[in-house]
Amino acid sequence: MKNRINLQKVWTVFIEKKIDNIISKIKKSYEHDETAAHIQKYPLPSKESIIKILKDLFDIIYPGYFIDEELNLSNVGYFLGHKLSNILENLSREIAASFRHEHKIDTNQCELCDESLEKGIESTLDLLNCIPDIRRMLILDIKAGYNGDPAAKSFNEIVFSYPGLHAITVHRIAHNLFVKKIPLLPRIMSEYSHSITGIDIHPGAKICENFFIDHGTGVVIGETCEIGNNVKIYQGVTLGALSFPKDKKGALLKGGKRHPTIEDNVTIYSGATILGGQTVIGKNSIIGGNVWITNSIPANSKVTLADVEKTIIVKKINN
Amino acid sequence: MKNRINLQKVWTVFIEKKIDNIISKIKKSYEHDETAAHIQKYPLPSKESIIKILKDLFDIIYPGYFIDEELNLSNVGYFLGHKLSNILENLSREIAASFRHEHKIDTNQCELCDESLEKGIESTLDLLNCIPDIRRMLILDIKAGYNGDPAAKSFNEIVFSYPGLHAITVHRIAHNLFVKKIPLLPRIMSEYSHSITGIDIHPGAKICENFFIDHGTGVVIGETCEIGNNVKIYQGVTLGALSFPKDKKGALLKGGKRHPTIEDNVTIYSGATILGGQTVIGKNSIIGGNVWITNSIPANSKVTLADVEKTIIVKKINN
Amino acid sequence: MKNRINLQKVWTVFIEKKIDNIISKIKKSYEHDETAAHIQKYPLPSKESIIKILKDLFDIIYPGYFIDEELNLSNVGYFLGHKLSNILENLSREIAASFRHEHKIDTNQCELCDESLEKGIESTLDLLNCIPDIRRMLILDIKAGYNGDPAAKSFNEIVFSYPGLHAITVHRIAHNLFVKKIPLLPRIMSEYSHSITGIDIHPGAKICENFFIDHGTGVVIGETCEIGNNVKIYQGVTLGALSFPKDKKGALLKGGKRHPTIEDNVTIYSGATILGGQTVIGKNSIIGGNVWITNSIPANSKVTLADVEKTIIVKKINN
Repeated sequence: MKNRINLQKVWTVFIEKKIDNIISKIKKSYEHDETAAHIQKYPLPSKESIIKILKDLFDIIYPGYFIDEELNLSNVGYFLGHKLSNILENLSREIAASFRHEHKIDTNQCELCDESLEKGIESTLDLLNCIPDIRRMLILDIKAGYNGDPAAKSFNEIVFSYPGLHAITVHRIAHNLFVKKIPLLPRIMSEYSHSITGIDIHPGAKICENFFIDHGTGVVIGETCEIGNNVKIYQGVTLGALSFPKDKKGALLKGGKRHPTIEDNVTIYSGATILGGQTVIGKNSIIGGNVWITNSIPANSKVTLADVEKTIIVKKINN
Repeated sequence: MKNRINLQKVWTVFIEKKIDNIISKIKKSYEHDETAAHIQKYPLPSKESIIKILKDLFDIIYPGYFIDEELNLSNVGYFLGHKLSNILENLSREIAASFRHEHKIDTNQCELCDESLEKGIESTLDLLNCIPDIRRMLILDIKAGYNGDPAAKSFNEIVFSYPGLHAITVHRIAHNLFVKKIPLLPRIMSEYSHSITGIDIHPGAKICENFFIDHGTGVVIGETCEIGNNVKIYQGVTLGALSFPKDKKGALLKGGKRHPTIEDNVTIYSGATILGGQTVIGKNSIIGGNVWITNSIPANSKVTLADVEKTIIVKKINN
Repeated sequence: MKNRINLQKVWTVFIEKKIDNIISKIKKSYEHDETAAHIQKYPLPSKESIIKILKDLFDIIYPGYFIDEELNLSNVGYFLGHKLSNILENLSREIAASFRHEHKIDTNQCELCDESLEKGIESTLDLLNCIPDIRRMLILDIKAGYNGDPAAKSFNEIVFSYPGLHAITVHRIAHNLFVKKIPLLPRIMSEYSHSITGIDIHPGAKICENFFIDHGTGVVIGETCEIGNNVKIYQGVTLGALSFPKDKKGALLKGGKRHPTIEDNVTIYSGATILGGQTVIGKNSIIGGNVWITNSIPANSKVTLADVEKTIIVKKINN
């Protein structure tokens, strides 16, 4: 045992020097770094806090599902008051932080602080005001799921466990903040849901009523997609960009419609890829699995893989 | 500073009124909502508690892997007693809640309460009794993984880190509850694993011994699939439904075999799609990557993409 | 109420016996199990602790992004000292545990204990020394993301929310430990990121500078891949093995180059599958979506699906 303790002592002195040396090197690597270090700068929003806010919003949107207490008509008002105050305080602060950071506003200058906070409070109140309408749309999404999946046994099963509902719930919240041009937060929210569900919906996408994604892993819906009513999408579907225009220096041009438009009553089966900002899938169309589409499809079309029986070869295995 | 405080005071009064107004609107949106609100109703199971129960089951099924304490022959009995009591109490309660909710049983009527709880205790004891057999099957699954993946360095690596083992472990638990017709819980469990692994196995699927999913992201295995012994599946494979029969009113018919049967010793490579309740992949067959299959394949077949070299065009890029 | 209490009492006695019986059966199932039980053995690393270490490493690599405190030039040294000491202690211990387990070293034999711990401390110090270089590479990866995605609004957005950056950050850490031949830990780390991002990069893969994965769900990069500079990969891309050589007894041969080489400046679009250890994608090539490649592609090639317009059939739906 003695030997071991001595050995450790030697290590300790040796290690302290090593650590000091590593600290200096890492500190040096932070200097002049505007890409991955955020030291002595305008405050950033907190990812942890944003995820907590999303959970509070789920508690309000789906009351009684994700909390331990039982809700009844006498306590539901207090429950809402408590949750809404929390969200107002926390989301206002995070929105303010994202504006201050975006516009490099020094938090010691109080007037400007308050303007950011005011914006935060305004945007949050507006989001909270929209909750009844967001709930109305999500109830339609739940019903679309129930009517679209023979394996769905009840509405409750969809609220509790369908990843597609998680993704569209977060999207309807994140999109509300995205159209208000709030930086960072909408993407942090959408990527949180992407991480939980495998469904990647950019908060910029416009998605109408009765939307249902089944299974969902691998679905990608790009920033400038427009999706009509009663659209059903299966796992692995990409609604993506075809090519990225560049400026004279060869840098990507940001903005512009790069992703497809899906009209009302379209179903898109698993693994289909639909690309391009000019591509329109006409209403009532059915897009078969694994197809690759880069041009518009007229309304009332059924698109399938050609000569399916010829795409594979079946051979006998000789043992 | 004074200016700022006054500003905040103004906001506070203004905000209180706004919040009160929002509370009223959201409360109103809860009224008569049978889809997404659960107020003053029969209790629901708790998703958080179900995830905790799954973690306790992992601790028992893989003893020594996911806990901080060291297990030895003298303390393992206490460890099991402690874990099993927890699971019995918590899972019985969740199963009872799911039955009460399903059958709209008022929890103030004690006799009926106890019947649900009795069902919960019975079902839980039956699951716990099956743990040795579930472990026997999972040990075979681990060995199938080790023998099927050249990158697997040890059994421990598979227990610790393979998403396919996580998914099949949760599935063998959830399926045990599914066949007992317990509502909600099996799907909450399977979607928890889907969220962790990207592998979506419906708890209804029947899966035999020596099952291995490698990588796994995007795998979908439908409710009425039947999978034999020694089956190996890669990422992005869909075992899905071909079409959904509808009743006279156009509503989906729930139930019926909609998903394929995979016989013994079949390997299915990445991205393959196999659809339809009448589709049978015969034993010893090898299904190549990205193929699309909607008809049965005879035993001992090798299915590959046709004319692979002709499916792509290789052009020189001129700069 | 009385009736209910009595009922519970009856259950309690009945249940105790049942539980005792289950404990015996499960204990018996642990006996002689070398696959899924770890009782009275050499200690295992802790998955929970490894995830905590990864989070500490993220805090150092991206200072100011994921912590609540604000960092400035006067406190950043203390911050680093605190985090680095934690990592040194915890990671050294986990590495030591993985060596002891690998070599079945009894922790009561102190000399050998210390050798494992020494290895742990050495490997950890080496990793920490590499952080400035890892940061340098990750800054290039962030810039590659910003320059490669028109939807990316800022570097911060990428640090906060891009799953591709999470995956490559964990990979650059895990690969550092993999090349030191540390058992178990690298794979536990990479599977943690796989679970968060849907991106499965084996810690053995060699990945050079300016690497960008967009969306990412379903990406698989195998153990023996080699990836050059300025490579961009989209969701659902597989860089996998073509076939697994077996020994005379039919068991898989572990080791050997089984996965492709991707040279500099290659872009691989969504859903492409590239297989085989001898397959080389030559520099400056563009690999189109959904293609299937099992042979080398010369430099400066553009590979696309052949006759795309003929791969689908568009029919009018008659109502």
